[in-house]
Amino acid sequence: MRIAVDAMGGDHAPREVVEGAIRAAGEFGVEIILVGPASVIESELSKRVGRDSRIALVNAGQYLVEGEHPAYALRQKRDASILVATRMVKEGKADAVVSCGPTGGVVASALQVLGTLGGVSRPMFGGNFLGFAPRTVVIDMGGNVDCRPEMLLDFAVVGAVFARRMLDIPNPTVALLSTGAEKGKGNTQVLESYPLFERSGLNFIGNVEGCDIPSGKANVIVCDGFVGNILVKYTETLGRAVCSYLEDQLRTKLSSRELQALVDGVLAATNIVDVRGGDALLAVNGVVCKGHGRSLRQDVTKTIGRAKLAVERDLVGAIGKALAEVRDKLALPGAR
Amino acid sequence: MRIAVDAMGGDHAPREVVEGAIRAAGEFGVEIILVGPASVIESELSKRVGRDSRIALVNAGQYLVEGEHPAYALRQKRDASILVATRMVKEGKADAVVSCGPTGGVVASALQVLGTLGGVSRPMFGGNFLGFAPRTVVIDMGGNVDCRPEMLLDFAVVGAVFARRMLDIPNPTVALLSTGAEKGKGNTQVLESYPLFERSGLNFIGNVEGCDIPSGKANVIVCDGFVGNILVKYTETLGRAVCSYLEDQLRTKLSSRELQALVDGVLAATNIVDVRGGDALLAVNGVVCKGHGRSLRQDVTKTIGRAKLAVERDLVGAIGKALAEVRDKLALPGAR
Repeated sequence: MRIAVDAMGGDHAPREVVEGAIRAAGEFGVEIILVGPASVIESELSKRVGRDSRIALVNAGQYLVEGEHPAYALRQKRDASILVATRMVKEGKADAVVSCGPTGGVVASALQVLGTLGGVSRPMFGGNFLGFAPRTVVIDMGGNVDCRPEMLLDFAVVGAVFARRMLDIPNPTVALLSTGAEKGKGNTQVLESYPLFERSGLNFIGNVEGCDIPSGKANVIVCDGFVGNILVKYTETLGRAVCSYLEDQLRTKLSSRELQALVDGVLAATNIVDVRGGDALLAVNGVVCKGHGRSLRQDVTKTIGRAKLAVERDLVGAIGKALAEVRDKLALPGAR
Repeated sequence: MRIAVDAMGGDHAPREVVEGAIRAAGEFGVEIILVGPASVIESELSKRVGRDSRIALVNAGQYLVEGEHPAYALRQKRDASILVATRMVKEGKADAVVSCGPTGGVVASALQVLGTLGGVSRPMFGGNFLGFAPRTVVIDMGGNVDCRPEMLLDFAVVGAVFARRMLDIPNPTVALLSTGAEKGKGNTQVLESYPLFERSGLNFIGNVEGCDIPSGKANVIVCDGFVGNILVKYTETLGRAVCSYLEDQLRTKLSSRELQALVDGVLAATNIVDVRGGDALLAVNGVVCKGHGRSLRQDVTKTIGRAKLAVERDLVGAIGKALAEVRDKLALPGAR
């Protein structure tokens, strides 16, 4: 398996990305193609003794930086590392691409080069959300806002495939995130989506509330990306705030090793991306994994591990098939 | 000051409510009017030695129970304790009403008997949200969904009054909760609200993201009640999940007293309602404070304390005035 890695993506690129990619080659037995300015990457590689034959280099003279408008930057930088790496997937030269670069750039590259599955308009972000609820996927956590009911149904279908393929849950339960458990509670979006979910063939269990997320009441919790984006960002900083509080309170009461283990546990429970690595953009016609911008080498390694798993489990093929099936079943249009 | 207390509202009514109300009379020097079936309340009072002259009793033969449809139940039970207590405010026989009964019943009683200020359609739930951010008010956390931009502006106006009057913040900063900090990020609701906020005269600082809530980046964070309701319920159970985790991990490492203090601190930081007591329904033409259904005596006492503060600070008068002013300033219609 060959994984193209955007060597210039992330706050600690290229060093941490290169180091993390080299580790991944050893740990997972994958071939790594580092994509970025050859001289920069060579310089990183030259700091190491010896050279792993599983590490290749593909030159890309440009790269995106945080804060650029992604679509505009990609038009200006046709040789940007993320674009070059994504094209390798399109051309069959790599099985997946991994980047810790700006989200907008990764998404725009994926859209431009690979396109989406089932005619969905934008990639989705979804995955297991909390360490407290390791068998719960929240979707969409990304950029899809003002979603029509058909889009929420797409999230549900894709989330259910993710739960089956990536979490080994055979018949995942699916729920709509709402303000009350009863049918009829929620906003117009939820009320209109409910009947569509009922006849979707999914294992739909109705609405869940915010309080049901940590307990993992459903395997797939569906929400508009506006809500999901707020939830995921909120959770991450809330978890960090709790950890700071614990450090303050327990500094004199626990050994530094005990305290670190406790804080790591709380972070793992509240911020699964840091623990597990970044996951694939969903409903893209190819495996594109996005790690956190602040990824260190171990985070890069983990994200490459997620990309490998997505390839092995044929996540892309399964999502494409499931989206086509639900369109057939409900006689919905193919593209939206 | 006289506070009417729905003696039958809450999971632990009447005992905990009566006990909490008696404590409040002593602690805050307020007169308490216990409202409910006279025989039931007399029986509770008779268990005590002596009788506080500040405790009065008003008979109400009926009461709401959790799970009833509130509007329907109130039509059937014209003598329900929450209705009788709320009428006392309307008739000037009490300065505020406090209930830990079903939210729907408290809201419906407030709407029917007292009505709203500034023509808003439904009461708002707002208040300081997290112990980590004690100077941040999130509004709406209640039942207002599918809100038009004018409604979000109302939330902002009311939230700013709350911050000034209840938190002593002279010129509170106001922000829209969105998916990105930049103008132009968010859903249609946020995009359409932004220009209205800009010309509102409020101290508007733009958008904040989910990650900005725990850090208290704005004093007033405005969101649709769909988002706020999910956030508040989510936070509460997430905080409890963290506490269970801490109890598991630290049982053998801390004394039970140390552990309890730590857990109490985390709960306080993540679940401010339990610590501070329930707050007033906002934009209602009278002070109606809603405590948590699971309130114990100390929680009831605190909620009565919040009612007292709202009366002292003339929260209702200030909200009415501010809503009228913003309508004048922006030439908006009076009722929505």
